[in-house]
Amino acid sequence: MTAAVLDAATARALLAPDRVALVGASSDVRKNTARPMRFMRKHRYGGRIYPINAGRDQVLGERAYPSLQALPEPVDHVFVMVPGSQVTDLLEPCARAGARVVTIYSDGFAEAGPEGLARQDELVARARALGIRLLGPNSIGTANLHSGGVLSVNAVFEAEDLIAGDISMVSQSGSMMGSLLSRAAARGFGFAKSVSVGNESDITVGEVVDALADDPQTRVVLLFLETLRDAPTLARALARCRAAGKPVIAYKLGRSEQGDALAQSHTGAMAGNDAAVDAFFRAHGVLRVHLLETLFELAPLASRYLEHCQGARPARAPRVAVITTTGGGAATVVDNLGLHGLAAVAPPAEFVARMAERGLHIRQTPVIDLTLAATSSQYRDLLEQLLRAEWCDAVLSVAGSSAQFHPQLVVEPLQQADMPADKPLAVFLAPQADASLAKLRQAGIGAFRTPETCADALAALLSARASPPADAPALRWPASVPRRGMLTEHEASQVFRELGIPVAQSAVIDPEVLAHDIPYPLAAKISSRDILHKTDADAVRIGIADAAGLRRAADEIVANTRRHAPDARIDGLLVQHMEGRLIELILGYRHDPLVGPTVLLGAGGVAAELNPDFALRLAPVGVEQAMEMIEQVRHTRLIRGFRGLPRGDCEALARAVAAFSRLAIIDGPAVAEAEINPLFVRADSVVAIDGLLRLA
Amino acid sequence: MTAAVLDAATARALLAPDRVALVGASSDVRKNTARPMRFMRKHRYGGRIYPINAGRDQVLGERAYPSLQALPEPVDHVFVMVPGSQVTDLLEPCARAGARVVTIYSDGFAEAGPEGLARQDELVARARALGIRLLGPNSIGTANLHSGGVLSVNAVFEAEDLIAGDISMVSQSGSMMGSLLSRAAARGFGFAKSVSVGNESDITVGEVVDALADDPQTRVVLLFLETLRDAPTLARALARCRAAGKPVIAYKLGRSEQGDALAQSHTGAMAGNDAAVDAFFRAHGVLRVHLLETLFELAPLASRYLEHCQGARPARAPRVAVITTTGGGAATVVDNLGLHGLAAVAPPAEFVARMAERGLHIRQTPVIDLTLAATSSQYRDLLEQLLRAEWCDAVLSVAGSSAQFHPQLVVEPLQQADMPADKPLAVFLAPQADASLAKLRQAGIGAFRTPETCADALAALLSARASPPADAPALRWPASVPRRGMLTEHEASQVFRELGIPVAQSAVIDPEVLAHDIPYPLAAKISSRDILHKTDADAVRIGIADAAGLRRAADEIVANTRRHAPDARIDGLLVQHMEGRLIELILGYRHDPLVGPTVLLGAGGVAAELNPDFALRLAPVGVEQAMEMIEQVRHTRLIRGFRGLPRGDCEALARAVAAFSRLAIIDGPAVAEAEINPLFVRADSVVAIDGLLRLA
Repeated sequence: MTAAVLDAATARALLAPDRVALVGASSDVRKNTARPMRFMRKHRYGGRIYPINAGRDQVLGERAYPSLQALPEPVDHVFVMVPGSQVTDLLEPCARAGARVVTIYSDGFAEAGPEGLARQDELVARARALGIRLLGPNSIGTANLHSGGVLSVNAVFEAEDLIAGDISMVSQSGSMMGSLLSRAAARGFGFAKSVSVGNESDITVGEVVDALADDPQTRVVLLFLETLRDAPTLARALARCRAAGKPVIAYKLGRSEQGDALAQSHTGAMAGNDAAVDAFFRAHGVLRVHLLETLFELAPLASRYLEHCQGARPARAPRVAVITTTGGGAATVVDNLGLHGLAAVAPPAEFVARMAERGLHIRQTPVIDLTLAATSSQYRDLLEQLLRAEWCDAVLSVAGSSAQFHPQLVVEPLQQADMPADKPLAVFLAPQADASLAKLRQAGIGAFRTPETCADALAALLSARASPPADAPALRWPASVPRRGMLTEHEASQVFRELGIPVAQSAVIDPEVLAHDIPYPLAAKISSRDILHKTDADAVRIGIADAAGLRRAADEIVANTRRHAPDARIDGLLVQHMEGRLIELILGYRHDPLVGPTVLLGAGGVAAELNPDFALRLAPVGVEQAMEMIEQVRHTRLIRGFRGLPRGDCEALARAVAAFSRLAIIDGPAVAEAEINPLFVRADSVVAIDGLLRLA
Repeated sequence: MTAAVLDAATARALLAPDRVALVGASSDVRKNTARPMRFMRKHRYGGRIYPINAGRDQVLGERAYPSLQALPEPVDHVFVMVPGSQVTDLLEPCARAGARVVTIYSDGFAEAGPEGLARQDELVARARALGIRLLGPNSIGTANLHSGGVLSVNAVFEAEDLIAGDISMVSQSGSMMGSLLSRAAARGFGFAKSVSVGNESDITVGEVVDALADDPQTRVVLLFLETLRDAPTLARALARCRAAGKPVIAYKLGRSEQGDALAQSHTGAMAGNDAAVDAFFRAHGVLRVHLLETLFELAPLASRYLEHCQGARPARAPRVAVITTTGGGAATVVDNLGLHGLAAVAPPAEFVARMAERGLHIRQTPVIDLTLAATSSQYRDLLEQLLRAEWCDAVLSVAGSSAQFHPQLVVEPLQQADMPADKPLAVFLAPQADASLAKLRQAGIGAFRTPETCADALAALLSARASPPADAPALRWPASVPRRGMLTEHEASQVFRELGIPVAQSAVIDPEVLAHDIPYPLAAKISSRDILHKTDADAVRIGIADAAGLRRAADEIVANTRRHAPDARIDGLLVQHMEGRLIELILGYRHDPLVGPTVLLGAGGVAAELNPDFALRLAPVGVEQAMEMIEQVRHTRLIRGFRGLPRGDCEALARAVAAFSRLAIIDGPAVAEAEINPLFVRADSVVAIDGLLRLA
């Protein structure tokens, strides 16, 4: 798949049309189909509006047209509100009327089962043939809050005034787009564009984001997502947003499905869809939030500090300096920061001394409590010092009742402080303090309504750093290895060796002759591409000490295999040197259906299925990213200096992870999935013990 | 410790005083110390108010008194706002003035370090001697929102009108009490009493809750907690609230400290404070919420359905029926329900058929989506059917934009529906819909502002069921076992056997003679109360196959011990039959400093330290509770039918957990901590392999 892009004229027709037609526009103000017309008049849309209604000369007091064919001039964008069964036949008239974009509110397509899907496929084929682009079907529409161009039936646009601003939203849920806009509007957040993509039959989220990367009115992009339908297009659009300095913040459903997907044994299933999409977000610098309202609350903070956060390598555990006028209020945020792995950090002694010289006595505690102890100018001074301090990565200010009743104490110093661009400042107001929240928002300061969204936002911001798949040399496919289907363990080992991964010394030998030069002790197992689970066939023996033991083992393994699977093709007996290890890990590769090649490092064994403990990234990764993955897997703490246990070779492990991930870029057959399980980590090396590889 | 209780007159003086004195009342309206007087006049307090100010005849236009001694009549309650150093000397005048309760706003006590703590101890001693009770110091005061009796400096009472209601709050943070009241007030939630306990030097949270159990104006109690200072008193108060049908909902700080505490090796440290307090909440039926605003948002739901939830044994995974007019909005809640272990459940075919007979066609999906498909009377009918359906434990209704603009579609049917008392109904409104939220609140329906608080509340409600420590026969202490200090492993084993726990067959033998009748294979280790970590001394050998092996092992163990700890007293050699097992667990007992005896069951081994996986309860527990603990420990899934693995003897395990927990009620020396590690679980039994026991 390659990235799709809207041309400039189509993007304009989508986001800022000059002439629109409303097919199925009603005169009955109670009906949804009357809304776009009403909304655009209410919000003073300056373009031309053509209502189309076969049964009426007038719609809401304006001249209506019986059909698209009857329009006096071409239009850019047609909004369709007729029953789903009538939509396909409308496309040709739309094309003839000059439309570049047709937004389809009608439902009864892919969301309605197999018949609907067939209808949708036909619709898209027709549009492609006609050279027009579709938004939807099942889209609640688009809105341009600067122009009043509301091609949408969403009730949120009933509002008396739309707040124009620099945030744009793209949503896979029409109703949630409205809900989020209404929540944000109640807080005074202004928007530029909103786009409901509906079923994404043609124009996808990625294409809209790409258009927003070029939109001068958009500075932050919010995504409400249920899935990911076109990763390459979105990846390209995200890169363009990064280049334009526009943060992209996402709320995605499906976090708890992850739990189910993870309780599976295979790498593929372990990397559930949500984990894969999360890896995609991470790779492309998307700020993923976990609470609904963080989605818009984070916008000012992200807009102000993203460039710094994207540039700097995040500290391993980002340190947050905390000042407050309410100890309990600060604690509610700090507790949540801890759950996100962020540390509230006490000022060093030098800083305390310096503040004392400046007349403010603070304590060397992780929360600097100024309740009743500071004037507003002292508060501002401390804030400015903190924002320039080397010992913290972000500053959190928590205000108590003064936020509600005495804004001069904390809120005004926040508004007035001189703020550098490289140190994020987040504010939590403990009481109900709508006016102060609005003031801070107007000052472009990231202020949060709940301790949970505040911590969620800081965690998303401080962990944001795009790390797209690494450049790496491609693997030359070994000539002796088949180019399709499931490989034998021995063949898979050859590929892994070719990638540069140490593999346990092994050979496939004739079970009659048993000639080999692998040092004892040995493990022996059947080699057959027809037997996936060798232990089920009782076709594995370990701890073989000598030739006599190998003879006994070989006879048992062959007999057991014949009994278990009489028709299995037997290549021979795989004998392998028994290796020692500190810990066992699993290394997985999968071509994910949503995001493409992914690599997984996780704790191995059946216990890990109960207690998911893995790191997943888009493949390939470089050694530095591999090291981050190692640190993310809790189980590896056992080899990273935990309680005096011996250390494992994390550098070798990182090299192995990076090497394995290059399955994504082989010059040869496409790999569907692969696994090394277990991968032994030792004090001075790693070694792959068992593995499988399935070609596409 | 035994439970403390306020007598009725003192409780009345605390919560509903008739005559109050304000020591340190100021005439300067900008000062905090002017607030109580202003607030009480503003909110039309009907009792008598006596401002005390040594320097003025008048305060805020009313007659002031130079001292408590000068008052014309006795008062119930004195509110003290003078510097901390002057407080102790005020107590005697307070007592003479008739006060039963003195609330101390002044700071500079325990919160200010060792000197302050000493001052606080003196203060309390003086109060005890005088027979008066103290609230605080460092308390922001109390408020009675029905009478206008606001003995508080909290700015939240600046509000023009206080909303009187049936919720009362007790807070260990003064500022957060104000913040929560302001947030709740903005949503129209009415309160009865609010009490800031400050440093809890005398009157504790438990005593206030106990008084609220008797308060006719209070139907729900909210707690904002940082710690637990008097568990027995709170336990008794919670039992009285349960008896009175008053839910107690708690938000407690410290969830993320738990993570740190859990990364320790010892049972004591594993059971961090927060986990112990959580066990206390669970035992006493407190609904613990994890998001700040859930604290008050849950009140109507808890008040309406608590009795049902407390009575019924919760389903293992509570099932929630979901109806919605916004698919995306419902998904935001359902995703969070999944994170809490609650299942959205599809209606059975019979239910779908029954609804079709009633004229409404729904699909058999976990979210019943009625967008545009139902009239309001159909919506109400479906709701009423769901609320009577056997196949779900709760109903969730999620409303979309209609909640904002067309309340007749969903909100009014919710208000009008006939609701049984045994099926909780929770509502989430996806858009900003303040008016609808208020309407639902007025109708006593649990309606939530965010998907996260909605799921948090349902999870807290559906898991609420008090299970106080079990009644069980006490253990007679074995005569041969010492009654103080650290026991040897062999002595500890005798105690465990006496409790009824199977212990691996073992004997302490003379390392010279080696006479024993334990069957081989054996493990052998040094027996010495001076050596806690036997492996550190290299004083453990396993897999001993015969007498010759035991001879070699004994010589090495004794030699290594002598080298490692020349002065250690050696009791002999502990030899133990080597046992097989399916999994290893750890069983811990600890007298927790906050909540008293606790029992812990967890995954064993060093990996469990990285990945905490345990269940903690107040001890003793019965077998049924022990079974719940087993189910809570993820690792035990390996012996509960996971992927065809052999099943372990969970009944024997539950009996062992219950038996071990009876260390809490031994008739003998008090146990400080004990541990069985590992406890082997087998197909037909459990067996304790190693253990320790420390007496107080």
